[in-house]
Amino acid sequence: MVTKIKAVQFGCGPIGCSVVRYASQRPDIELVGAIDIKESLVGRDLGEIAGTNNKLGVSISADADAVLSQAKPNVVFLTTSSSAKVVYPQMEKCVRAGANIVSTCEELAYPYRKNPQLSADIDKIAKANNVTVLSTGVNPGFLMDAWPLFMTGVCQQVKRIKAVRVQDASPRRGPFQKKIGAGCTIEEFEKLVAAGKLKHVGLPESIAMIASGLGWKLDEITESIEPVVAKTRVKTDFVTVEPGQASGVRQIGRGIRAGEELVTLEFEACVGRSESYDAVYITGTPNSEVVIKGGTHGDIATAGIVVNSVHRVISAPPGFVTMKDMPIVSVLGFSA
Amino acid sequence: MVTKIKAVQFGCGPIGCSVVRYASQRPDIELVGAIDIKESLVGRDLGEIAGTNNKLGVSISADADAVLSQAKPNVVFLTTSSSAKVVYPQMEKCVRAGANIVSTCEELAYPYRKNPQLSADIDKIAKANNVTVLSTGVNPGFLMDAWPLFMTGVCQQVKRIKAVRVQDASPRRGPFQKKIGAGCTIEEFEKLVAAGKLKHVGLPESIAMIASGLGWKLDEITESIEPVVAKTRVKTDFVTVEPGQASGVRQIGRGIRAGEELVTLEFEACVGRSESYDAVYITGTPNSEVVIKGGTHGDIATAGIVVNSVHRVISAPPGFVTMKDMPIVSVLGFSA
Repeated sequence: MVTKIKAVQFGCGPIGCSVVRYASQRPDIELVGAIDIKESLVGRDLGEIAGTNNKLGVSISADADAVLSQAKPNVVFLTTSSSAKVVYPQMEKCVRAGANIVSTCEELAYPYRKNPQLSADIDKIAKANNVTVLSTGVNPGFLMDAWPLFMTGVCQQVKRIKAVRVQDASPRRGPFQKKIGAGCTIEEFEKLVAAGKLKHVGLPESIAMIASGLGWKLDEITESIEPVVAKTRVKTDFVTVEPGQASGVRQIGRGIRAGEELVTLEFEACVGRSESYDAVYITGTPNSEVVIKGGTHGDIATAGIVVNSVHRVISAPPGFVTMKDMPIVSVLGFSA
Repeated sequence: MVTKIKAVQFGCGPIGCSVVRYASQRPDIELVGAIDIKESLVGRDLGEIAGTNNKLGVSISADADAVLSQAKPNVVFLTTSSSAKVVYPQMEKCVRAGANIVSTCEELAYPYRKNPQLSADIDKIAKANNVTVLSTGVNPGFLMDAWPLFMTGVCQQVKRIKAVRVQDASPRRGPFQKKIGAGCTIEEFEKLVAAGKLKHVGLPESIAMIASGLGWKLDEITESIEPVVAKTRVKTDFVTVEPGQASGVRQIGRGIRAGEELVTLEFEACVGRSESYDAVYITGTPNSEVVIKGGTHGDIATAGIVVNSVHRVISAPPGFVTMKDMPIVSVLGFSA
């Protein structure tokens, strides 16, 4: 085996831990540092926090500059925030330390529409430091943008495109069920929405990526969010939802041109749904319907695509890139 | 609109005509020449032969060198043969004329295993002439290689991978039904197989591409071909199949390592099947089942991905490339 890729984990929350669990199993990657400012994590072993089988001998530190300059990583897994503005100064530190970045920041999956200046800034500092920066994940980054675009490759015309992600949250963890509003009254649900606490980030970014890939200039991108209202009582290990309460959330993003809805992204997560699936529907020549039966496990898939992207990111030309322009990211089946 | 891409069609058989019909509808592409050595085609208008709405004002010529030097195309659609050895001297002419190439030569979809020297030669002359050469299509090129690889991107481990293409040939053209052996006795079928007249080319290439993408070193790639035997009488507009006769063909490619079948590609085309579909089955973390309902129309899809690849091929670094390493090829939705 050639020299391992040295990686630093920046952000040791649930997604970061999921990335660490996968990365620590890869024979081509060595975790050489970890950064988080949360007091309860600082000084702890990264493996212990992430729940790997063994300690990793990597202590979590709050001092990003110190970790980056000492560990000299080839790549940083940056999983701190959905907000481009929060993530930017962290990216800057990594890039100036000469590290490539694979981030899960949803707003940076395709930021050219909402954050054009920030996109240009990241591209500029990445090029100046000869590294590549990518933001990816299962959604945004795959299911509702890269995958639908990929499936249009065998079409001759696309008039409309729709991606649907339906998740039955019943078998998921309690915090996830609470996060999607399961068991809230409709009033409580609306309060959570108003407070910005109940929102999947990334639909506008996915729509912008699809439109760009298809060469469409959209007039408008809209988003709506509403409760899925339970018709019957639903009971999971963690919540009980009475009829009339929210069993989860339905979020719809729309890409519109000349009054016509060209792109539709429907995201639904609720308890008590009988099935999970992901699907792409293309209206065009020909029509196409593609379904991932049973859906896609969000945590496994996000950690998967983040870690699987590493080789592509390292070998890509310097600058800021998105999944729209990345070569196929596949798993590396060392352990098969 | 910026300057159109100038394209020459090399090979005016059914696939070439399908490419021409799509390319002629694209506002970003101008067909500037056509090559075929078939006497009945020489001197005819390309549009007339391809069945476009209007004549294209492009006369089919048997003199490749003359067409290439006069038309100075940015790209050549090369759809002459499944055989790498047949196609190579044609590629050489195009490349020396400074043209990028999108080919449908099945053996060149991923030729590094079966034709390593030829692959290196194409790469060398492409680089020397500062152009890019790609061979693609729906299969090989998409359904049984690039698409399965793409779907592994959200996995953390792949132990086995299987792709299935099932086509109900009943609604297809008569020549296609005959080509797959529908209505043959088993003896006739075996004779067609022995004569090499009844074979889908490309399964070993697709298996090699998948293995390379996943980092697997295979010991062996095998192929089998057998008739699908009709159990009941099947009648289409073109053939009648009696019980015990062949209703079509089933071809299976296998990628094996240490006695274990890691890659399985099943290709089945027959009349009287109730459904068509394409599917990818991944055994790993997690397992995954992805289905294209109703399948993928071979002719539309091949012309689609060939023409859709043009911009990626033109902007790729010079050399010989395969779909494994291409950025996402999506349709350009000008007309939407």
